[in-house]
Parts: sequence; C-alpha cells; structure tokens
Amino acid sequence: MAAQSLKEALAETGEVIDRSFAALLTVPDDPRAPLYEAMRHAAIGGGKRLRPLLVLATADLFNVDRQAAVRVASAIEAIHVYSLIHDDLPAMDDDDVRRGKPTVHRAYGEATAILAGDCLHAFAFEWLAHPDTHPDPFVRAELVLDLARAAGPSGMAGGQAMDLAAEESGFDLAMVTRLQQMKTGALISASVEAGAILGRVPPEGRLGLRGYAHDLGLAFQIVDDLLDAEGDEATVGKKLRKDGAAGKETFLSLLGPDRARAQSAMLVDQAVRHLHAYGSEADLLRGIARFVLERDR
Amino acid sequence: MAAQSLKEALAETGEVIDRSFAALLTVPDDPRAPLYEAMRHAAIGGGKRLRPLLVLATADLFNVDRQAAVRVASAIEAIHVYSLIHDDLPAMDDDDVRRGKPTVHRAYGEATAILAGDCLHAFAFEWLAHPDTHPDPFVRAELVLDLARAAGPSGMAGGQAMDLAAEESGFDLAMVTRLQQMKTGALISASVEAGAILGRVPPEGRLGLRGYAHDLGLAFQIVDDLLDAEGDEATVGKKLRKDGAAGKETFLSLLGPDRARAQSAMLVDQAVRHLHAYGSEADLLRGIARFVLERDR
Repeated sequence: MAAQSLKEALAETGEVIDRSFAALLTVPDDPRAPLYEAMRHAAIGGGKRLRPLLVLATADLFNVDRQAAVRVASAIEAIHVYSLIHDDLPAMDDDDVRRGKPTVHRAYGEATAILAGDCLHAFAFEWLAHPDTHPDPFVRAELVLDLARAAGPSGMAGGQAMDLAAEESGFDLAMVTRLQQMKTGALISASVEAGAILGRVPPEGRLGLRGYAHDLGLAFQIVDDLLDAEGDEATVGKKLRKDGAAGKETFLSLLGPDRARAQSAMLVDQAVRHLHAYGSEADLLRGIARFVLERDR
Repeated sequence: MAAQSLKEALAETGEVIDRSFAALLTVPDDPRAPLYEAMRHAAIGGGKRLRPLLVLATADLFNVDRQAAVRVASAIEAIHVYSLIHDDLPAMDDDDVRRGKPTVHRAYGEATAILAGDCLHAFAFEWLAHPDTHPDPFVRAELVLDLARAAGPSGMAGGQAMDLAAEESGFDLAMVTRLQQMKTGALISASVEAGAILGRVPPEGRLGLRGYAHDLGLAFQIVDDLLDAEGDEATVGKKLRKDGAAGKETFLSLLGPDRARAQSAMLVDQAVRHLHAYGSEADLLRGIARFVLERDR
C-alpha cells in the first residue's frame, strides 16, 4: 500500500472496511435483525476511515499479514462507530445527521441505538481476542489491553465525560488539550500502536510512531475545530457550529483562527519529523499527516 | 471457600467485590469525578453478586489464585452492572430504583449514565487483558473472547434486543427460552466458564460445568419471573410487575405458576446432577443452585 497515493489509499481503505463490516455484521434471521441493521447503518458506507487507514499504513511498515490488519482496523473502527452512535443520542449531543445520513436513534429508535453501540463495543474485543486475528495470544491480549484503555475512562469515554463538564466550567488550553487527547487522540494513537503490536515491534521501538500519533491527533482536533466554525455542513456531513452555541472553549476559541491554523501546521511538521527513522515505506503515514491538515470534512 | 455455608459465601463475596471495585474505581481529582462516582454508585454496595460467586466457587474447584479470580469476577460483574445502567435508561426500561437506590441516570443524569455504562464495559476487558489477571496471555485472551461473546449480540445485549422485540410479537416458549439464555444465561455461563479457564481446564473437561451453568441460568430466570409477579418490591429492590404491564410473554405467562415452579426445581436438580464428577469440593456450587431456587430477591 506504501506506493499508493493518499487518495487511492483512502478510497481503498473505505472499500476494504465496508466489505469487512459487511462480512462481520451479517444480519440474522431472527428478532435481532433491526439491531444488526442499525449496526450496519452506522458502520458501513461513510466516514473518512482515518483510524483504519492508520492501522493498515503502520502494519504495512512491518509487513503484517493483510487480513490480520484489516480485522484489527475493523475492531478499532467499531469502537469509533459505537462512540458516534452514543454521542449522537438525545441525552448527549442530540444529533439528527451523521455522515450525511440520519443518526441511528433517528432511524431505529433510541433503545436500539444504545444496544447497537453496546454490541459494536463488545464485538471489537471479540474480534481482537479471536485466534483469527493473530496466532500468538500475547499479541491478541496486548491489542485488547491497549484498545480497552484507549476506549475507556482514561481515553475516549473519559474525554467525552470531560467534554460534558466543559460546558459548565471554562477550560483553559491545558485542559482542552488533555480533553482532546483523550476524546480523539487516544483512539488515533491506539490505531498506530495496533499496527506496531501486530508488527511485533517492542515498546521501546514504538517511540517515533507514538510521537507521530500524538501530534497527528492534536492537529486533527484543531482542524476539526476550524471545520466546525468554517466548514460546509453538506461536505462535512454533520451539524456544525455547535461548540460556539454551547459556550464551550475549544482550540479555536482559545487560540483564534490564525494561531490555530499555524499550530496545526506545526504539529503536522512535527508528526512527520517523528518518522525520521523510516524511509519511503512511511510515505503513506506522512501523506496521512498532510491530509489531516488539508481535509475539508 | 468450599467449606463455607452459602450465606457466609454470599456475604463474603459481597465484601470482596465491593473492596475490589473500590480499588479499581478510584475517583480522579479532575472533571471525570462524576463519571467515576456514577460507576461506584452502580457497582459498589448491592446486588446478589451471583456472577462473582460463581466465578470464585468454580475457580476454587481448581485451586486458582484468589486475587486472579477476584479480578475476573469483578470484570464479569462490571459487565452485569453496565447492562443494568443501560437497561434502566428512559429509552429502555425507564426505571427509577435499582438495588434499593436511585438508578444512575436519576442520580447523575442520562449522559453520565450512558458513559458510566460504556466505561465499565471497557474496564471489564482492560482488567481481563492486563497481565495482573494471569501470567499466561493465552488465558487472558480466552477470558476476553468468552466474555465478549457473552456480552455482545450473541449474548446479553442480543437478548436485550430480543426483549425489545418481544413486546410487539408474541414469543412462544422456545423463543422466550432463547431470549433468556442470551439475556441472563450467557453471563451466568461465562462466570462458570471463566473459573474453568483460570483453572486451565481444557474445553472437553468443562462439559459438566457448562451443563450446570446452562440449567442454573434458566432456573434463575424462571424464579425471576415468579419474583416479578409475586415478590415484594422493597425486598427485591426494584420495580416489579412490569412484564405483565408490557404484555410480554414470560416463562410464567406461558407455563403458569405451578408448572413454572416445578420446572425451576427440575432444572436445579438437573444442574446439580451435572456436577456428579466432583466431590464435596463442589458443594458451594450445589448450594448456589439451591439458593437460586429459594431466593426472595
């Protein structure tokens, strides 16, 4: 995959992950059919597939078996999709549109949306722990441990809880940075880490990749703030201008648009520099970093 | 633990699991404090702790290290507690009282309740996959795989989805049995299975224990239906008489009280017979089966 253009890699990853979800989420012929249809509605067809692409691009660095990498990429994307389903619920962000389609609770009702999120959450760990993912149980257990930490209260879900609190208390730049590192950064880091775990890179050999993922995650979130303020709802595929309306501090409100843009560009440069130990085989990871900066959705 | 009376074992398990959750769910000094308090509200102090007791009693059969068994028991109970939090939500069963206390969404709001459930869900897999649980990654990966299957769409959450469908379509006895085997049976079976996995019992050596857990799970649910119809709300600690109000078929509505009682007694006898290969060291498991029949909450 390393020789592809980024545009091709994104398109191919989208197709690969759609096929993978279609196979993993076969609708049963029983009363659980709406539950599975709700999972498919949220998981198939849409999204940038940034996290799966990061898994696949990192796994390619270490010549990881493609099928194993796609399974792990699907598990991490399942966690991302479950979090979108739950974040969109009326009690949370109360969103009607996601990826240009009705949100799951709009299309299937709230109870099924809660359960569809819960099922994707459990599926992610079932897929990772299954021997099909990797013959070595040490690799499987490490994948589970790392993803569970990234998804839980020290990661994504904890960041979402911080976000709820942010509406009441004015967060400063340090707190907004910590919130975003948890809410979006943790899963982006877990994607790169999973590629390295599959590649059997020992923890001390992952420092460059960790630095890359850390800076990429922050840059991604700053661009997200800019898109929220300046983007086009039809292109982005979800409701925008919510942060300002909720009175929440963001990178944009704290830095202003010019410094936010400069900061995201600096972070992307820094992310790319963390890959100095790798040659052209890491060009796709470098391309992803630039894409994060230039994306319009 | 095998020589204890059942009453002592239940009380001791309650204390052990409360202490374990208190240590695993330390409230951080940051904006996530309400999230952790919500998890502690739901997880600590209350509940029969049937699933943890099954893990500990089965693990004792095979002289499993006590700390490892308590960690695994806490992980399985965390899944049970997360499911109660989500099932109680307004969009699901809309319950105000659980274990004699306000439900999590009543005490902490709906958004925090959704996230507290999600965090306990992720924590369960983090705890299982951590090297502290067992030095052998094969054991850890098997524990994760088995619990994820029991929690997901083929188990507990799938059973809850069947339950939503049951309000509209009249289920027959075969469908009600399947629903309940998924909704409550899967996690009861996973508890016994986890004890055997920790004890390194090969799958072909687990058949008796699996038969025991299967019959126990069904007996448990039939008694639950009887308690729902005949129990005392203050003793049971939650709202009762809901199944009849929702027009749902249950073991009780399909069998009537006399046949339901006879069926649960027959299943408990059968569960105990599955333990024939074990001597007095399985007396606690036998006692649990009788407790399931005689419980009043």
